[in-house]
Amino acid sequence: MQPLYLEDLTVGQKFISRTQKVDAEAIKTYAREFDPQPFHLDGEAAKTSLFGGLAASGWHTASLTMRLIVDSVPLAGGVIGSGGELSWPRPTRPGDTLRVVTDVLEVIPSRSRPDRGMIVMRSTTLNQNDEAVQVFTPKVVVQRRRVGA
Amino acid sequence: MQPLYLEDLTVGQKFISRTQKVDAEAIKTYAREFDPQPFHLDGEAAKTSLFGGLAASGWHTASLTMRLIVDSVPLAGGVIGSGGELSWPRPTRPGDTLRVVTDVLEVIPSRSRPDRGMIVMRSTTLNQNDEAVQVFTPKVVVQRRRVGA
Repeated sequence: MQPLYLEDLTVGQKFISRTQKVDAEAIKTYAREFDPQPFHLDGEAAKTSLFGGLAASGWHTASLTMRLIVDSVPLAGGVIGSGGELSWPRPTRPGDTLRVVTDVLEVIPSRSRPDRGMIVMRSTTLNQNDEAVQVFTPKVVVQRRRVGA
Repeated sequence: MQPLYLEDLTVGQKFISRTQKVDAEAIKTYAREFDPQPFHLDGEAAKTSLFGGLAASGWHTASLTMRLIVDSVPLAGGVIGSGGELSWPRPTRPGDTLRVVTDVLEVIPSRSRPDRGMIVMRSTTLNQNDEAVQVFTPKVVVQRRRVGA
């Protein structure tokens, strides 16, 4: 993929990732390290939780989403966000196949820095039923092409 | 720690986590799996990036933060968020020692569900210099004590 600069980005542009299957083992492995709560570790214990069955940590969904964004949104200088609104409408479940659709919402050149700008993008992580498991709307720093280059 | 129900929570309540040191190897291991960009993988390559040196993925900081929240915010039924505003004012660096301070901002009983409510909390992840590396302000579902229990 050609690296994209601020000048290459337009509102409405869309990037679609490859798919990634998530199994129970991956959910538990992530949870053991970062979110060791019973509903992310043990299918039996999860039955009596709010989730009603084994569910991935939202942060696992977020981490998998980033992996798919890195492959699918080829920004020059990389994908570097400063944060944004994050929501998990439903959990990722064992056996789900995720993909990420990223839409460019705003393109904003910097007033003070001629070498960069910012975009607002929305990355929606969908499961195999086209249900959103995560929506993240970050501000992302994007390089401009060098003047004269 | 005694599990806390909605009735036990008040605006202004504060929870302080243990500390967690983060080394370069952990930063690279997370990045290889979830955010394989040069500035998270290679100190030399990172020098010419926006970060100016090796930096943890924001999602690694978020994952480590969740680990510290699980240990320090003892909600009955677990810590289950539906999302919120997330920001990374600066990156986590190799050698940083993180801790998380969580403040209760709002306590909201459910109108439709007598068994639960919601809190808004703010979890600020600080490094050893008391600089924020992440601020996350989620809505979290919290159980109420059973009537008659």
